[in-house]
Amino acid sequence: LLPGRTSTAVNEDIEVLVMLPKNNSYMFSIARVAPVIEYAKQGLKIGGGLYSGLNFKVRYEDSDCGNDALFSLVDRSCEKKPDLVLGPVCEYAAAPVVRMASHWNIPVISTGALASGFRDKEKEYSHLTRISPSYLKMAETFLAMFRHFNWKDALLIFDDDKKERNCYFTMEGVHLKLMEEYQTVTYAINSKDERLNTDEIIKYIYESEVVIICAGADIVRDIMLAAHRRRLTNGSYIFFNIELFNSTSYGNGSWKRGDKHDSEARQAYSALNTVTLLRTVKPEFENFSLEVKRSIQKAGLPDCDDCDNINMFMEGFHDALLLYALALHEAIRNGLTKKDGAEITYRMWNRTFEGIAGQVSMDFNGDRYGDFSVMSMTNTEAGTYETVCNYYGVKDSFQMLPGFNPDHFTLRGLHRVSHADLPD
Amino acid sequence: LLPGRTSTAVNEDIEVLVMLPKNNSYMFSIARVAPVIEYAKQGLKIGGGLYSGLNFKVRYEDSDCGNDALFSLVDRSCEKKPDLVLGPVCEYAAAPVVRMASHWNIPVISTGALASGFRDKEKEYSHLTRISPSYLKMAETFLAMFRHFNWKDALLIFDDDKKERNCYFTMEGVHLKLMEEYQTVTYAINSKDERLNTDEIIKYIYESEVVIICAGADIVRDIMLAAHRRRLTNGSYIFFNIELFNSTSYGNGSWKRGDKHDSEARQAYSALNTVTLLRTVKPEFENFSLEVKRSIQKAGLPDCDDCDNINMFMEGFHDALLLYALALHEAIRNGLTKKDGAEITYRMWNRTFEGIAGQVSMDFNGDRYGDFSVMSMTNTEAGTYETVCNYYGVKDSFQMLPGFNPDHFTLRGLHRVSHADLPD
Repeated sequence: LLPGRTSTAVNEDIEVLVMLPKNNSYMFSIARVAPVIEYAKQGLKIGGGLYSGLNFKVRYEDSDCGNDALFSLVDRSCEKKPDLVLGPVCEYAAAPVVRMASHWNIPVISTGALASGFRDKEKEYSHLTRISPSYLKMAETFLAMFRHFNWKDALLIFDDDKKERNCYFTMEGVHLKLMEEYQTVTYAINSKDERLNTDEIIKYIYESEVVIICAGADIVRDIMLAAHRRRLTNGSYIFFNIELFNSTSYGNGSWKRGDKHDSEARQAYSALNTVTLLRTVKPEFENFSLEVKRSIQKAGLPDCDDCDNINMFMEGFHDALLLYALALHEAIRNGLTKKDGAEITYRMWNRTFEGIAGQVSMDFNGDRYGDFSVMSMTNTEAGTYETVCNYYGVKDSFQMLPGFNPDHFTLRGLHRVSHADLPD
Repeated sequence: LLPGRTSTAVNEDIEVLVMLPKNNSYMFSIARVAPVIEYAKQGLKIGGGLYSGLNFKVRYEDSDCGNDALFSLVDRSCEKKPDLVLGPVCEYAAAPVVRMASHWNIPVISTGALASGFRDKEKEYSHLTRISPSYLKMAETFLAMFRHFNWKDALLIFDDDKKERNCYFTMEGVHLKLMEEYQTVTYAINSKDERLNTDEIIKYIYESEVVIICAGADIVRDIMLAAHRRRLTNGSYIFFNIELFNSTSYGNGSWKRGDKHDSEARQAYSALNTVTLLRTVKPEFENFSLEVKRSIQKAGLPDCDDCDNINMFMEGFHDALLLYALALHEAIRNGLTKKDGAEITYRMWNRTFEGIAGQVSMDFNGDRYGDFSVMSMTNTEAGTYETVCNYYGVKDSFQMLPGFNPDHFTLRGLHRVSHADLPD
């Protein structure tokens, strides 16, 4: 898949500015991502030889997660502008940085900036390449299910923290994707400031078919318990939660708290399906994973929960450097320079390449196609989850797995969708 | 009112970056404001002598009305930062510019940035001084009326262009001000994309007491005609429109179109009150006005409607330079320099000074107190308007004028508010 096999290496110094939060509570903190970028650099140096002449000089800047990111960019770039910006991930940090970088003709690759607004590459976000699937791509999974299972409307319940607003932007994607064909009603929670009003939520659920929740694990549990107590988990409603990145907070442990409601919660969760990222691995990933974990352990990060897991953001920044190297090499071979930011950016779009964990496909607009999994409880006694179907963005198709149970996806009273009806 | 009368002049070069749109369709375009700033400079040079040593070196940059303003600021400031930024006015241009300038410790004075978000001077907008009354200040007029006339709820109808969003931000101010004590319902129109649904609006009006409209003159007329045809203009509802800046588009000409609906519209508008800025003049203003008009005429601006009027934005930029001179002078006399942006900024706050058209009072948060007028039709035969009461922000009080008719402000069926009941 690497183009230009017969061409030769080019030598070039590339100034990379990595803009991520210092704070390790973010899954994409500098300390977590730095070893990944180091690994990618090394890989490019040795692998194949084609990119061995690319000398990436990487500088890390604290972007925090808000407006301050812009200040870092500007203050660091006034004298000498970087050739490439990696990050920021948070929407409110990314927006002004991408605008400024686009104005300066500097490519930006982010594993975040997943909100729908960033798809506008005509003007303000012209130099942005999104190497992780955006919320709109995720929402395609729902659109495909709605079409397939013949649902009519959705209630979108989300916790809006009014700060980073991840669940707000997540649901915005679902809303935008579904709204053209289906009825959607949104219900915003602000869990920081208000008590959860489950009575009101139940009223909204009564009016809906499909309930989609984006919120912290405790809120999801409270809603599911309330719905279960009103007997809404008996098949007349379909429930989903969206949990893209925090692999530890969904799945088997999600209903369990060690409190007196565990048994009820387990029953309630038998009606809850989880949409998450489809993760793939291949042999090379093992070594990557081991090396990166080793570096992180060696650094001994303080307050770094879950630091042993390679998450989607880390994976993405590895592939970001790869994709940039491909595009830059191609551009230089065609007589351009590293300063031709727009040209390099377009060469990253509408192409497929081999990433660290599998194939990465970028659409014509510079946004990665997404593959997603739907998980359901397959053992109601033990309360354990399995992936029951996968959605593949490039092909816009489902793959049903052995654990798939059509009951979970058929509204009681509607025509039952049998396994055999489903396309592969 | 000028402090430090006994002190002497200080000599200083001050780099001023004026960030306004080139496009003359804006009431605050560069070509309209430049003569004002020139006039203010001259005034400081000669008047009193105290500020005669301040040498303002003014550069004008096209801010347009959106995100691009930031690029102008950054590109012009990388080498050498200005000491003072005047503008931008448009909210989406001002937000990133004020953030960046605040980060760089540069004072910003704007006659715009009127949206409620800019009141947050704790962090992102720390260096912003608003020399024109914000939408929240305007909304105090409504709050005072609600309290005084005993109204209970408001329907806020506004045209949201999803671009500059002036009416959206206007109504946000009203909503934020009223919401703590009164019920508000908002109804957004998007006149660019959708036909006005007056039937639906009428349904909303039925449920309300006070109807407040922010929209273009034609939309206001359509709503008022629809309301009149349903006999909703007979005193059971109170109608307002908000028209702060465009003095030509409210008042006597607002109902008249020369079409067959004029007579009906005149009757409808007898129930419509307009909230606008209270404008004052004093002898010095005459000369200012003449001089500025002369400069503008000499320059012969193309496509400049209404260029003969000195508007609130122009007035404001004059006073901005005055206020800055006061604060800078004071700061330097106290051992600071022009680079102490935060200190100079705070010296502009919580003070009253003599502006070109009258007294200007800044609150402790660096936002100007506002005085507003309510206009009503006082001659229903001729369909002419007069100012019937004024609201003074500093004192939070009304002044009723001879044309004031309590019927206009009393909901039919409620206790009639008599003129005598009103405080001065």
